[in-house]
Amino acid sequence: MSLAFKPAGEGLRTRIFHIIFESHTPASKGFDIALIIAILISVVVILLDSVAAYHARYGELFSLVEWCITVLFTIELALRLYCLERPWLYLKSFYGVIDLLAVLPAWLVLLVPGAHSLVLIRLLRVLRIFRILRLMEFVGEGQLLLDALRRSTRQILLFFSSILVLVTLFAALMYLIESPETGFTSIPQSIYWAIVSMTTVGYGDIVPVTPLGKAITVVLMLTGYSIIAVPTGVFSAQVIRSLREERYSDEACPGCGYDRHEKRARYCLRCGTWLDEDSEDPRKQATSDDQ
Amino acid sequence: MSLAFKPAGEGLRTRIFHIIFESHTPASKGFDIALIIAILISVVVILLDSVAAYHARYGELFSLVEWCITVLFTIELALRLYCLERPWLYLKSFYGVIDLLAVLPAWLVLLVPGAHSLVLIRLLRVLRIFRILRLMEFVGEGQLLLDALRRSTRQILLFFSSILVLVTLFAALMYLIESPETGFTSIPQSIYWAIVSMTTVGYGDIVPVTPLGKAITVVLMLTGYSIIAVPTGVFSAQVIRSLREERYSDEACPGCGYDRHEKRARYCLRCGTWLDEDSEDPRKQATSDDQ
Amino acid sequence: MSLAFKPAGEGLRTRIFHIIFESHTPASKGFDIALIIAILISVVVILLDSVAAYHARYGELFSLVEWCITVLFTIELALRLYCLERPWLYLKSFYGVIDLLAVLPAWLVLLVPGAHSLVLIRLLRVLRIFRILRLMEFVGEGQLLLDALRRSTRQILLFFSSILVLVTLFAALMYLIESPETGFTSIPQSIYWAIVSMTTVGYGDIVPVTPLGKAITVVLMLTGYSIIAVPTGVFSAQVIRSLREERYSDEACPGCGYDRHEKRARYCLRCGTWLDEDSEDPRKQATSDDQ
Amino acid sequence: MSLAFKPAGEGLRTRIFHIIFESHTPASKGFDIALIIAILISVVVILLDSVAAYHARYGELFSLVEWCITVLFTIELALRLYCLERPWLYLKSFYGVIDLLAVLPAWLVLLVPGAHSLVLIRLLRVLRIFRILRLMEFVGEGQLLLDALRRSTRQILLFFSSILVLVTLFAALMYLIESPETGFTSIPQSIYWAIVSMTTVGYGDIVPVTPLGKAITVVLMLTGYSIIAVPTGVFSAQVIRSLREERYSDEACPGCGYDRHEKRARYCLRCGTWLDEDSEDPRKQATSDDQ
Repeated sequence: MSLAFKPAGEGLRTRIFHIIFESHTPASKGFDIALIIAILISVVVILLDSVAAYHARYGELFSLVEWCITVLFTIELALRLYCLERPWLYLKSFYGVIDLLAVLPAWLVLLVPGAHSLVLIRLLRVLRIFRILRLMEFVGEGQLLLDALRRSTRQILLFFSSILVLVTLFAALMYLIESPETGFTSIPQSIYWAIVSMTTVGYGDIVPVTPLGKAITVVLMLTGYSIIAVPTGVFSAQVIRSLREERYSDEACPGCGYDRHEKRARYCLRCGTWLDEDSEDPRKQATSDDQ
Repeated sequence: MSLAFKPAGEGLRTRIFHIIFESHTPASKGFDIALIIAILISVVVILLDSVAAYHARYGELFSLVEWCITVLFTIELALRLYCLERPWLYLKSFYGVIDLLAVLPAWLVLLVPGAHSLVLIRLLRVLRIFRILRLMEFVGEGQLLLDALRRSTRQILLFFSSILVLVTLFAALMYLIESPETGFTSIPQSIYWAIVSMTTVGYGDIVPVTPLGKAITVVLMLTGYSIIAVPTGVFSAQVIRSLREERYSDEACPGCGYDRHEKRARYCLRCGTWLDEDSEDPRKQATSDDQ
Repeated sequence: MSLAFKPAGEGLRTRIFHIIFESHTPASKGFDIALIIAILISVVVILLDSVAAYHARYGELFSLVEWCITVLFTIELALRLYCLERPWLYLKSFYGVIDLLAVLPAWLVLLVPGAHSLVLIRLLRVLRIFRILRLMEFVGEGQLLLDALRRSTRQILLFFSSILVLVTLFAALMYLIESPETGFTSIPQSIYWAIVSMTTVGYGDIVPVTPLGKAITVVLMLTGYSIIAVPTGVFSAQVIRSLREERYSDEACPGCGYDRHEKRARYCLRCGTWLDEDSEDPRKQATSDDQ
Repeated sequence: MSLAFKPAGEGLRTRIFHIIFESHTPASKGFDIALIIAILISVVVILLDSVAAYHARYGELFSLVEWCITVLFTIELALRLYCLERPWLYLKSFYGVIDLLAVLPAWLVLLVPGAHSLVLIRLLRVLRIFRILRLMEFVGEGQLLLDALRRSTRQILLFFSSILVLVTLFAALMYLIESPETGFTSIPQSIYWAIVSMTTVGYGDIVPVTPLGKAITVVLMLTGYSIIAVPTGVFSAQVIRSLREERYSDEACPGCGYDRHEKRARYCLRCGTWLDEDSEDPRKQATSDDQ
């Protein structure tokens, strides 16, 4: 938590800050649970409201619930801004923008009912779930995944570029072989089919009918089936590396040079030498004290 | 096996206990095989009985077989309870509940024939297979898998939360783009489609028809195709870690009691004490030689 | 190659043995290539012969080709038996049985034309490809894979048992929820659907139509999508272990105790001590010679 | 960059060489970006031109754009050849052939309009993207992947051979069981179906209808679902090995010339010589101290 988000004063504002922004006390944990329930209810209501039958029967109830939760979220946002010293800085941060997105479009939609196409923006409040995950200390896990992803970015980019080039050439080939009647009406359409096939989704809305087309499809499917081993292998290797680096120190033992000690090791597991060169070995002190 | 499940007396009860609850003697191995055959017959009969043609022709035979096996399972459960000192404690344990579920609903169904919807509860006896697996010493393997799963729980939870958020937003987007005639009648329906697509199942009952919808589908499919590398990588790393931990010794340090040393460690990593109690510490020998 | 398969005499038989059973000389390599071409031609002919249009037009040519290759394979088998000291022992070995299967049914089919259902047995000669792979020194690779598979057998068995139990319960649930009109006519049919869905194949011949059925399908698909990480993780870990064991020795350095030397190491990479305790360090010998 | 591709003279040619063939200066980076944009525009135009509606409306615009980019690519190729000392050597290299393929067919197509089937060759210019990837220093990553692929080649070949043998036998079996009316009209058709099923694509254009056929399909699908663990495991292991080999130093032993030491090695594992030429061998110091 950077200094900019420190609570502004003592008393009420500090207490609100501890409840809303942290998650160590029972009160703040209760707040988190209430928040997650509100988010889930809100999202479920938006989803159900999109079903014509439910909208017809419960439409007004849904509006009411959404209205209530929007009011609650607005109050919550107001409290967040109230208890911070620099509220504008918060509004411009990642979570501030999400909080705003969870409130503003809802007001807009409630004022302009029937704004069908705003359903996507109203749903953006589902992103608030990440705030809860953050509070629940999932940060470390996410960090490890992001670390491994960042390390494998270039291999994965290279992998996707190769796939797209491959898919384009396969699609052009199928466009030439299969007749437009069977769905291969253009190369973009063929690319859609090639990706449906290579990712092993296989809707079956477009399928090859000529023997040659089927033979090429077989090659494409076997490629897609086995090539997934590439990003999986790269990512596995990076996760293993990240986990190992968390655990082992790079420092070598000054006694025997052994260099695969766990970070928590204080004595060499091989020759018993004191590993921390900056401080004194407690055993030596003991011996000195004896004299 | 905790004390609570110890055989109550000597003689018959002890012998029954050894046959039913253990799997070291020929008698108890024969019992296990008989049990596994009975479970499989019972399950196959329930499955076949659900086929209308077979039910019409062999319905009575199936009832008879199920009735016989239920009687056998009931006798077995009675024997289990008979040979234990604290039968109630067993009934409340995990395997006790499964044993009960394998017997009670069957009786109910036999008394109230035609209870169609009880077929699921009758099938719960398939869970008894895990008891057999446990006896066959699959415990270690399961333990290793569960260990690795428990360690990756948070990453996998984070992964699924992200997937569900992503799927919800994709679904809302497709609901706006595609017309209801093509199957995207509501957001929940769109979510069903999005998960069918992202998990690469691809039934083909709902498919995009507009060019924009197909473009978004391509992104969704490529995401689903490659994102599976994430849980696979995390789980692989954890299995490797679990396997490696077999490298850890159970012996505690005689100096400070620390008990998670690698098997190759000769000195305690916390206090530098010589770990091998059967031989002399080379350092001490060196000191002795000096004198 | 065990002693039982040693060539019987000198001269012609020994030369035939070297050509047929080994793959080091140009002659035997040429023989291998001829064999692989014959197998492929033979299989392709059987495949094409099953296409009605090709059978009508080229049926007789196909018969001729198959007849020729069968004669060649018979001669080859006769030569194999001729040049061995204990031909019966060979016939009872794995490759002997495959050789016999590649010849006998073909004779049967040629004698009894129209034996439609023998096509599968005639195709068994495709198994002869493994003999070629063996000669081409793929043995090591296959051994490594089999090693890793054997080590993960129990985890994979446990995994499949769990999947089958899960699939049975899901199938029974869907059988209760969905009406028979939509394809869920019996529990075995439901199991077929559940496996089609969980393995992410998704034919789309049977799909859920009720909202509840779709919700359960979503859970089943997400399970199938992510659970594949389990055997992949286990197998990856075992392959890594097998590769590592091939490379590193377990012996510790007598000088400093370091124990992760590559097998080819003769001196400790850490302290330069001679590692092979059974022989003399060449450097010491040099020094001794100097004196 | 080998000597053959060195710039021919000073002045203009050298400057062009630095801009076109390298990517360190702002000018050459701008050139790379312009090139990638030109490639993408060119490919997008070819794709859109294959859509009948767009071709009818914008066909002439598309021709114009493609013509312009072809002219630009031709000028670029001319400049490349101009600034090299041995242009013919470049034209025969991998990237030279791609550059030529990006230009020649386009000229052909522009001269002979309506050459529908040349669309595939015109699309080959998408391969030029790899040149850009190479400039952007993706070489290391690709090298690592290729290294790991080359090492797993034999296992992956063995894996595919086994799959194809398996698929052939499954297909023949289904051809016998299912009737031709349901799509299993020949064994090649059955093989297409078997690969669609085993790779978990599952179009649903051909599905089993008999109970026995469904049972066999279940086995095939479970095989395909789980067998993917094999190449993934092998490839993961090889990537991990490749990453680990970054641990190896390139320095050769001054004693015996051995050059595959781990970076942490201080003594040669073959002859025990002290590897660090910048410092003194501790063993020697010890001997000196003794004197």
